Amino acid sequence: MLKRERPKERFGYDPQKVLRKLEELGREILKEVRQGKNPYFDIPTRGLNNVYFDEVKRVIRMGDKLSRRYFLNVAHARKFMQTLLIAAYVKRLVSEGKHASLREAYYANKHTIPGTKENTFEDQSESDPIIEDLERMLGVLREEMHLTADRRGYVYGDITIRDGEDEFNTSKLGMGGWAVPGTVEHIQFVDINVDYALVVETAAMADRLIEEKFPKKERALIIATQGQASRGVRRLIHRLHYEEGLPIIVFTDGDPYGWYIYSTIKQGSINLAYLSEKLATPEAKFVGMTMDDIKKYGLENVTEKLKGIPPNKKGGPTGDYKRIIEEMNYPWFKNKEWQRQLKLALEWGVRIEQQALANKSLEFVAKKYLPEKIANEELLP
Amino acid sequence: MLKRERPKERFGYDPQKVLRKLEELGREILKEVRQGKNPYFDIPTRGLNNVYFDEVKRVIRMGDKLSRRYFLNVAHARKFMQTLLIAAYVKRLVSEGKHASLREAYYANKHTIPGTKENTFEDQSESDPIIEDLERMLGVLREEMHLTADRRGYVYGDITIRDGEDEFNTSKLGMGGWAVPGTVEHIQFVDINVDYALVVETAAMADRLIEEKFPKKERALIIATQGQASRGVRRLIHRLHYEEGLPIIVFTDGDPYGWYIYSTIKQGSINLAYLSEKLATPEAKFVGMTMDDIKKYGLENVTEKLKGIPPNKKGGPTGDYKRIIEEMNYPWFKNKEWQRQLKLALEWGVRIEQQALANKSLEFVAKKYLPEKIANEELLP
Repeated sequence: MLKRERPKERFGYDPQKVLRKLEELGREILKEVRQGKNPYFDIPTRGLNNVYFDEVKRVIRMGDKLSRRYFLNVAHARKFMQTLLIAAYVKRLVSEGKHASLREAYYANKHTIPGTKENTFEDQSESDPIIEDLERMLGVLREEMHLTADRRGYVYGDITIRDGEDEFNTSKLGMGGWAVPGTVEHIQFVDINVDYALVVETAAMADRLIEEKFPKKERALIIATQGQASRGVRRLIHRLHYEEGLPIIVFTDGDPYGWYIYSTIKQGSINLAYLSEKLATPEAKFVGMTMDDIKKYGLENVTEKLKGIPPNKKGGPTGDYKRIIEEMNYPWFKNKEWQRQLKLALEWGVRIEQQALANKSLEFVAKKYLPEKIANEELLP
Repeated sequence: MLKRERPKERFGYDPQKVLRKLEELGREILKEVRQGKNPYFDIPTRGLNNVYFDEVKRVIRMGDKLSRRYFLNVAHARKFMQTLLIAAYVKRLVSEGKHASLREAYYANKHTIPGTKENTFEDQSESDPIIEDLERMLGVLREEMHLTADRRGYVYGDITIRDGEDEFNTSKLGMGGWAVPGTVEHIQFVDINVDYALVVETAAMADRLIEEKFPKKERALIIATQGQASRGVRRLIHRLHYEEGLPIIVFTDGDPYGWYIYSTIKQGSINLAYLSEKLATPEAKFVGMTMDDIKKYGLENVTEKLKGIPPNKKGGPTGDYKRIIEEMNYPWFKNKEWQRQLKLALEWGVRIEQQALANKSLEFVAKKYLPEKIANEELLP
């Protein structure tokens, strides 16, 4: 039986820490300017050649390669200026307890430099990387700097959350559930009355489970990602696991996109390796859909064909086939259970959706499929 | 000043009505079979040649063209069978008080007909149109048949909703707000303590307004659509306007996509003309963004160029330009205020985003832009 474990992290949001780091950065620059030196930032290098898979902690981590950005360097000066502008903006946001979207941060800092025709930023594609640079330099999440990502996803189950002055139970909001905000740094968990969290890819499936009263019967918290999990949802999952000891079980479609959603929740994305320790949940497990489910539950009639060209055909692999082969090479899928599923998908050339379980009956997923698999711990690592 | 008006509709969801209509349909077919006749359905024709704009009610409506679908006709038999299958499925759903997604409805009804190799449905693209046929035939919403659409969007403000046994105030859910379910037929409004509803295109802007305490200060309900408004959100807006007398004000980006979002909320879409009377809210008004805002608020520096080729250039109009010209021909945009804005967009070749207002200050939209425009009723029809 799945049970809540002992917490491994404590509620740790501290705006003062972020402010201190920013002030330190500013003072350092100021000191160099006063000393007549050429001020610079050291920024951990982005990209694949500066990430590795930490086998012990089982997360993608950033290496220690740095690149130095000088003020007095024609190739660096623009980015140097942009970095200071965004750092100052973040300081203002955090001091005032305000949040801004990435887009707002871009617009707020875009202006023409007096006496020139030069704009500080021409496009959001200039400000976003600067924000990522700051995350890497300071070792804080964008959300801790009060810059919010796009929000998506909702939560339903017997937990009580405090957000500012409000306190509410997410199982008492009708069929709607609680919409997960872009930033969950500031929320507190007042009461957790569930045994585990079930992370569900599609809203339709989450709503099915809510309608079948699965959260109550199985003492589960439902977290609907509505596609790829937003950063807010990933951070919420991380916090529920590490601060509250909730086992995390992921339930997606049985296709390369669904498995990628699982992969991102579990390990983080390679582009954002520096966030893994705060956003990823390597202990997450996977309940389905798997290729074995197709045979076990007689779903052959409701599979769909994989898209693209198989590896053994001319021009292949492309599409779904190519993505599956990529996934076979992820370090966290290098185990016999996952290799088996991914190989079967390639062999059979099919995918299977969560909602295909409705072919049995609407109740099937809530009354048989999930309770059985979870009770028997038929879960992939 | 905007104030709540007198309600024009009453809470009207009645599952028995849907069941009666389905039973009537079934009895009619059965009677014809028993009499040795060739049973048929009369289905209002889909497509542009069977819709018109009702100038009085100011909604798109379905015409009275019918097409007849016979059982004993090789070209009709498959669809006849599919229509009966789905009708029977809907009867079961509504009787049992269960809901299914369109995808579940497809999977649930897909099977191989015994003794043949024929599947009842090969693809969801076969079942969706059958569901639309039933909506048109019976004059009920898909949601009233317990078939739910994709859900998206959330709500924040001082209203109290009852959904089953739960009763909650959507301003007491922290920064998250209430996630709008796929179906809002069954919810009831217990208490409405706002003067109007502000429908907002982007989550980032809705969250800005929530952070600035706009809903409380301005006695407004915020409805975030997160892009194109889902059917659940459109139905919610309709019900808040007609059952609760709330004025509806829409706030989108100043670009063809944002104006289309407004258009869909206001008038419904041409494809789904038969739903207009239950999903559309023709009395909705538009606060921004407009082309005039660019000059009035000095936002020239934060506009973006329209995409595509202008009408006066070779190969044009394409992209944004083409969509704007299409929108100029919508009957509900055939008024001087909208023609002016759309013409200005074509002339200047620019678009303006909601979040560009952050260039003034984060508070600007909540403290100046919206309160001023709404108080002065600077709204487009």
